[in-house]
Amino acid sequence: MDQKIYKAGVIIIGNEILSGKTQDKNVQFLGTELNKIGIRLYEIRMILDIEEDIIKTVQELSNKYDYVFTTGGIGPTHDDITMEAMAKAFGRKVVLDQRAYDCLLAQYKTPDQINEARIKMAYLPENCELVPNPISHAPGAKIGNVYIMAGVPRIVEGMFNSIKDTLVGGTPMESLTVSTYLTEGIIAIKLAEIQTHYPDVEIGSYPFVCDKRYGTRLVSSSYNHQALQNAYNDICEMIKSFGGQFIDANEEIENT
Amino acid sequence: MDQKIYKAGVIIIGNEILSGKTQDKNVQFLGTELNKIGIRLYEIRMILDIEEDIIKTVQELSNKYDYVFTTGGIGPTHDDITMEAMAKAFGRKVVLDQRAYDCLLAQYKTPDQINEARIKMAYLPENCELVPNPISHAPGAKIGNVYIMAGVPRIVEGMFNSIKDTLVGGTPMESLTVSTYLTEGIIAIKLAEIQTHYPDVEIGSYPFVCDKRYGTRLVSSSYNHQALQNAYNDICEMIKSFGGQFIDANEEIENT
Repeated sequence: MDQKIYKAGVIIIGNEILSGKTQDKNVQFLGTELNKIGIRLYEIRMILDIEEDIIKTVQELSNKYDYVFTTGGIGPTHDDITMEAMAKAFGRKVVLDQRAYDCLLAQYKTPDQINEARIKMAYLPENCELVPNPISHAPGAKIGNVYIMAGVPRIVEGMFNSIKDTLVGGTPMESLTVSTYLTEGIIAIKLAEIQTHYPDVEIGSYPFVCDKRYGTRLVSSSYNHQALQNAYNDICEMIKSFGGQFIDANEEIENT
Repeated sequence: MDQKIYKAGVIIIGNEILSGKTQDKNVQFLGTELNKIGIRLYEIRMILDIEEDIIKTVQELSNKYDYVFTTGGIGPTHDDITMEAMAKAFGRKVVLDQRAYDCLLAQYKTPDQINEARIKMAYLPENCELVPNPISHAPGAKIGNVYIMAGVPRIVEGMFNSIKDTLVGGTPMESLTVSTYLTEGIIAIKLAEIQTHYPDVEIGSYPFVCDKRYGTRLVSSSYNHQALQNAYNDICEMIKSFGGQFIDANEEIENT
């Protein structure tokens, strides 16, 4: 394909993810949604709430990818250091942003409710654009190709949905998935042969254990609709030829 | 604290994670288990099945951290390229490893069951150590400070448990968590004040939405047992002073 592949990186910021105390849910959401609009998620970094690490990581990924999305660390508490770090990464200051202040007023109704802690959420990197927050109002920020978002999954969804129509992507990659209780060792040689017939299709093979039975999920992905359909058909034929049972993808994923 | 902090990086390898098709579960497991043995997870990279990316990432993290753990891409299918990439990253070749072959024999019973595809799993970087696999037998590998493991969560658990007693860590970080329906904006100033009293304690504040109610989870972590207990007590007193309701952590996490 000669068309440009739009690439994104994601930075998940937060000690709670790396300590194992919180199960990240934002990667799966962002990977899925970006793909729908023709942007491929190339890399994820999960890092601690350490200013230097945030600065280095965002500088690196901002240079490397068309888009960068960050989650976490933009609230009112002492451990929310992402906005300050992002400003520093791009040689800016954080300033009281009137637009952000007005968003807080929409949430808290009267200025005296916007206390000393909450007003921190109106301090944004200078000259940024806002990332609207339809859930809890305090906005995220956009600097260059970097979208700075909250960490709470529902707020990430709201923020992403509010900006996604402004993102420029290419043709979305299509996928077709089939799962079977055949193990990878049975099908690997034939599957590799199918792969050689479809250079435009990425065929991924993912083993799983479901109710103590081993199986394989086969995911074909491509920008080429017809090649994808043909590869998928060949894979289904292969499963039949080995006497394999087709299984419901959701059933399998839930039990992995 | 003057004692050494042992640090780890994790590399999650696999297109299925970045496309959103598979929800990663290995980060939370590894973060939790490493912490129990006094090793702190500092950084996670999630990358595609691209040889060059695997090589660069493992070289970088291997230099940066005491331990590196990788998951994914060590099976028998054409898209499993991790072992080859790891060997290249450390200037080694992959060779037929008799120990790994014997592990496969334990699984498949007779040599003719170890077909052309499965035997790929006996090719490991030369001069590596094995990472035993009590679940599906095909072993992982250790090169220097890098532990190369499977991607299936149950196999990751089995592999990690089989090597964890060989890992050298420091004092585990202890944590105490309390959740409340008070929002961050209410408690932030007082919480920051508590934080200043306990420089040895990391106090993290994590907002959540549970059944449309906003709340905050407060996680205190420290290597200093007494300071941790004192900070936790102060946080609980703070919640009471604001008239906050204590809520069960599991209830909250499930609904976030």
